[in-house]
Amino acid sequence: MSGLRAPLTFEILSRSAKSNARLGRATTRHGSFDTPAFMPVGTRGTVKGILPHLVAQTGAQILLNNTYHMLLRPGSELVQRMGGVHRFMNWSGPILTDSGGYQAYSLADTNAVDDDGVTFKSIVDGSMVRLTPERAMEVQNQLGADIIMAFDDCPPAAEADTRPPGSEEDDQPRGHDDPRPRRAIARDKGKRGYDHAKRLEIANERTVRWLERCKAAHAQSDHQSLFGIVQGGTDLSRRSWSAERICNIDLPGYAIGGVAVGESSADIATVVRHTAPLMPDSKPRYLMGVGYERDLLAAVLAGVDMFDCVLPTRNGRNANAFTRTRQIRLRNAKYAEDANPIEPGCDCPSCDPRRYGWSTSDPDPLPGHFSRSYIRHLFMVGEMLGPILVSLHNLRHFQRFMLDVRATIRTDDWTDLIARWPVAAPGLAPGALSGTAAV
Amino acid sequence: MSGLRAPLTFEILSRSAKSNARLGRATTRHGSFDTPAFMPVGTRGTVKGILPHLVAQTGAQILLNNTYHMLLRPGSELVQRMGGVHRFMNWSGPILTDSGGYQAYSLADTNAVDDDGVTFKSIVDGSMVRLTPERAMEVQNQLGADIIMAFDDCPPAAEADTRPPGSEEDDQPRGHDDPRPRRAIARDKGKRGYDHAKRLEIANERTVRWLERCKAAHAQSDHQSLFGIVQGGTDLSRRSWSAERICNIDLPGYAIGGVAVGESSADIATVVRHTAPLMPDSKPRYLMGVGYERDLLAAVLAGVDMFDCVLPTRNGRNANAFTRTRQIRLRNAKYAEDANPIEPGCDCPSCDPRRYGWSTSDPDPLPGHFSRSYIRHLFMVGEMLGPILVSLHNLRHFQRFMLDVRATIRTDDWTDLIARWPVAAPGLAPGALSGTAAV
Repeated sequence: MSGLRAPLTFEILSRSAKSNARLGRATTRHGSFDTPAFMPVGTRGTVKGILPHLVAQTGAQILLNNTYHMLLRPGSELVQRMGGVHRFMNWSGPILTDSGGYQAYSLADTNAVDDDGVTFKSIVDGSMVRLTPERAMEVQNQLGADIIMAFDDCPPAAEADTRPPGSEEDDQPRGHDDPRPRRAIARDKGKRGYDHAKRLEIANERTVRWLERCKAAHAQSDHQSLFGIVQGGTDLSRRSWSAERICNIDLPGYAIGGVAVGESSADIATVVRHTAPLMPDSKPRYLMGVGYERDLLAAVLAGVDMFDCVLPTRNGRNANAFTRTRQIRLRNAKYAEDANPIEPGCDCPSCDPRRYGWSTSDPDPLPGHFSRSYIRHLFMVGEMLGPILVSLHNLRHFQRFMLDVRATIRTDDWTDLIARWPVAAPGLAPGALSGTAAV
Repeated sequence: MSGLRAPLTFEILSRSAKSNARLGRATTRHGSFDTPAFMPVGTRGTVKGILPHLVAQTGAQILLNNTYHMLLRPGSELVQRMGGVHRFMNWSGPILTDSGGYQAYSLADTNAVDDDGVTFKSIVDGSMVRLTPERAMEVQNQLGADIIMAFDDCPPAAEADTRPPGSEEDDQPRGHDDPRPRRAIARDKGKRGYDHAKRLEIANERTVRWLERCKAAHAQSDHQSLFGIVQGGTDLSRRSWSAERICNIDLPGYAIGGVAVGESSADIATVVRHTAPLMPDSKPRYLMGVGYERDLLAAVLAGVDMFDCVLPTRNGRNANAFTRTRQIRLRNAKYAEDANPIEPGCDCPSCDPRRYGWSTSDPDPLPGHFSRSYIRHLFMVGEMLGPILVSLHNLRHFQRFMLDVRATIRTDDWTDLIARWPVAAPGLAPGALSGTAAV
């Protein structure tokens, strides 16, 4: 690690006896966050539709911004001149930025990866943009997040047939049929002599070389923490190879990349259970772009400390609300005259605004909550308040889940957790309570 | 007035010695509001993009909902079954609904006005919808607002060449070139033998007959206050004729209609200065759909007590911010690196979030305000938070202006008010400080 003082400290406060789960606290120059932590995604410097103090009120302690999007608009130099991303977006807590590599590969229509970096066509003005390990560090140094990610080569999964749930937050609603990862695959596979296994091997080796370059380029900065990224797809031997080499480079934290690019929950869990124990015990482990409650639980039990995902806001904008048992679609006609809150008993600002001091008169004679009927109406007529209310609910849902997960690390009563969160049950797979036994 | 108990009381607390302006307080079953009052518009049961407690925090004490829109979606019967519009939208303070007549005439592509009512084609499902005085009362009774408006016949102005600034809030951004009032005119003028003066005369007479029918139909409800509407276009003799007949029907309040349908500010002021003194002194006077600061000031000086307009939110959604001196367009490139708040010194949630307790950590080291640079970025990338922040600013701008106007009614120092709000100066026209002398 570079610099004169530690920009990140990580303390493990408690360990589960039945699993590899750990309760911790990470401290940055912009404050601390409890782990395991779920980071909402603020792709373009805003968690879509939600005022930053409301994001904080849902319990979020750290956010993720996407470097690719901020680089294109408004530009990282501009953000730097405006005082950095914290000041720019008015979020005073910790922020993490990704490197932009995955988006450059998966979002741009035109791109080319070589041993030195990625060249892609800007979706904003059509100009060609070049990202290398050095440039990715420069851009993230300009943005000024507390944790910055190594520039890696991350090709889509070989059998990608689902949209990654969480890697970036754009305006295009999509479900499990998003074509883009497959298009990237198809483009590559259309090339003469393309060999996906070979491509993954090259990516794996490249990612190690690029991490060395990232570390060297970042060396002059002493207020941001660079995390390395373990790659290797779903091939466990490749994961072992990558974990050994990546974690041999001394850094304040490490991530598992390339498992939210189209894999099934079962594949994610298998890779994470294999890889997490190979990463340093004393440093934070971050699983990128994951995921559903079941995925989070499986990864926490395997010893992962940090997560990010767009699911709360992307699904919120599409009227899909998370509950402890399942997702509900609030556009459904059966909610047209349903006076209940999204989820009775929920403590989010939409279901229980009084808890947040939200009222329009004093005393306020109304029940206080926003009804499913009202929220459905807002979506049916295209009113912004619908996405806002369901996003707030979903953001709080994931923070409540993580709060309960953190409490359960102390009690180790995981079946009780599942009783409260049936939706996460598949994450408690047989063997899951012994991180190493699961492999 | 119908019913056993008064659903509205109106007390005049202070009068300007130099003008007809009055400071008052109106009390409904859902609480009180200070007058002169500016009502934000929540067309479809939501002030676009703004959580209701935030609307209240900007200082708004009463809202307007559009009956036309609520009738089409979600339907007034549904709102009634859900407990009425206050509970439906989670606004516990006073609410006013318009009658739907103007929108039925100006928004629907197909409509026909006859002596009994208006038939129009639903923009939602293409079905034909009929509004009569009796049906307009039934619909507003179902919605359950505190103040409901008479169903009137309100044709566009003869020379309409500007979009009315404030009659309803839809999703179509528009400027001064909106074709719809002109289209309505053109449609009518295209008819054989159309005579606009004759059309206005018929509308004027119809409005009186329809008001009698509204009052009779509303008689069974004792918790809502029906206001009559004075029509007559820009013809002052027609205004006198209408005011005499409308105000001869005993009601708890009266409105000036048909002056936000395309007239210039000068025409609005002329009509209002002529008409307001003809309306009962002891009851609230409401100028519908108005307007800019200059129009509000001119009308307050003429003795008007209530206003509604979509300008704060419609312009906010289009990155147009009101300030004390002028509107600024936040998409302008000159704001790209402007670290200032929208308006330095402003106390709105966007310019001074700390005042509202908004922070993302404690203590919060950031300056707190959202910069013009950040807001411009949000608009350039199409992020919802841009419209939210500028709408909050604009909503507060109009409430701050009204607060200052109310304070000035006590001091009568109107030139000092104008020194603080140069944007309102044209409202202080020569003669404006003597309401009757201006005619």
